[in-house]
Amino acid sequence: MKRIVLGLEYAGDAFCGWQSQAHGRTVQDVLERALAQIAGEPVRTHCAGRTDTGVHASAQVAHFDTRAVRPASAWVRGVNALLPPAVVVRWATEVTDDFHARFLACERQYRYILHNAPTRPAMLAGRVGWYHPPLDVARMAAAAECLVGTHDFSSFRAAGCQAKTPVRVMHEARVVRQGEYLLFDFRANGFLHHMIRNLVGALVYVGKGRYPVEWMGELLNARDRAHAAPTFSPDGLYLCGVAYPPRWPLPGDGRIIALPQLPLV
Amino acid sequence: MKRIVLGLEYAGDAFCGWQSQAHGRTVQDVLERALAQIAGEPVRTHCAGRTDTGVHASAQVAHFDTRAVRPASAWVRGVNALLPPAVVVRWATEVTDDFHARFLACERQYRYILHNAPTRPAMLAGRVGWYHPPLDVARMAAAAECLVGTHDFSSFRAAGCQAKTPVRVMHEARVVRQGEYLLFDFRANGFLHHMIRNLVGALVYVGKGRYPVEWMGELLNARDRAHAAPTFSPDGLYLCGVAYPPRWPLPGDGRIIALPQLPLV
Repeated sequence: MKRIVLGLEYAGDAFCGWQSQAHGRTVQDVLERALAQIAGEPVRTHCAGRTDTGVHASAQVAHFDTRAVRPASAWVRGVNALLPPAVVVRWATEVTDDFHARFLACERQYRYILHNAPTRPAMLAGRVGWYHPPLDVARMAAAAECLVGTHDFSSFRAAGCQAKTPVRVMHEARVVRQGEYLLFDFRANGFLHHMIRNLVGALVYVGKGRYPVEWMGELLNARDRAHAAPTFSPDGLYLCGVAYPPRWPLPGDGRIIALPQLPLV
Repeated sequence: MKRIVLGLEYAGDAFCGWQSQAHGRTVQDVLERALAQIAGEPVRTHCAGRTDTGVHASAQVAHFDTRAVRPASAWVRGVNALLPPAVVVRWATEVTDDFHARFLACERQYRYILHNAPTRPAMLAGRVGWYHPPLDVARMAAAAECLVGTHDFSSFRAAGCQAKTPVRVMHEARVVRQGEYLLFDFRANGFLHHMIRNLVGALVYVGKGRYPVEWMGELLNARDRAHAAPTFSPDGLYLCGVAYPPRWPLPGDGRIIALPQLPLV
């Protein structure tokens, strides 16, 4: 039995999220079907971050066990030939059988891209969030600072969240402007269900002046979802990095590589 | 009667090209239906560059005449509310009735984005071309130089091209690398049918070493499509600028604005 790890990229608007469903077209469903064809046996995958419907990934990590002996290229090019256009395996590598894509991930990195402009996106519809009124990024960046550290994030947790504890260690929480886009970067040991989309919603409230910068800290301390802002759309959310202990050096984990300047007006 | 000009952005993979078809879902079809609803009368549009199926636009320009008297915001926000997600009106302005989006355009700018990497794109499937083997960009840039100036571009013209003359004035022909992407930028008074996709095909042949740099000039001088390389896919092609004489100062024509660094690995 071999344990294989894959690096995956997918456009979330083409799928009903990661997790396998009886009647849904999920990333896990299409991936496991393609892997099973190459392996010649059923395959069960486990991923680092089970993204919701509409949420994208540039650097998802997943592992599976198989008795099939195949070259690494079969798990990349062979599987890619069987996958739909919106998902691709970027790399594959064999690991020891004590590796686990979900339980051993020590850091996850997400980026939210918000198009802050008078007209909605078209070229990137479904790929970026959209917010029309002007936003004060300096206020949003200042409000995000209080999120760094070890905190109880109950105020930003979805009602159905299955996590055992609402405490997470946030290593980075940044907001910057790049032209018509705001980029929200979060790194933490893990995230609660809808946590980033709820954080973005609250930061937008601060950015448009509805609440003062200090409101973010008050919200965090309240540990009560009832006080927070609405959940933001999944359109602009990307899982873009997963880190593991140095014992498992994976190719390309956590890299963020620049897209070229797409000619968007 | 008023003449209104619109600035448009659209994802070409969602449409069967610009031009209206009896049984096709084209950009012109969905746009004219939305405009007619706002105008309360049928509307006929004329655009600067009739893009093919799969070809995108970040700065298409189109005009129409109407008896309806509406504020500019109705031609932007009102129409956008009626358009599908993959197309948006960026701006609208009234012009004198001697303006014509197609016949008065004195320069058009196109960019081709080629993903030059071992695995195919997923996040940008349909939005960038893909070529797997390594390409020598210095050779491609050198080969592109001979295209600048006034030339007969018959070697890069599609069989069904309707243009009266194969002569075009090329103001710019550049190839640069940005990480895993090659950007091909072309500015000319106009382009023949499939001309850019044929130019990209020929430049890729030079870049992979199949032909020497000088082959590009020989191909141009041959004035014969039979000698050229295959037509490249429409996936990576963007109409990203249209220029008019200074008498008609339009908002935002020809701008290329940077997309943020999407977190693509």
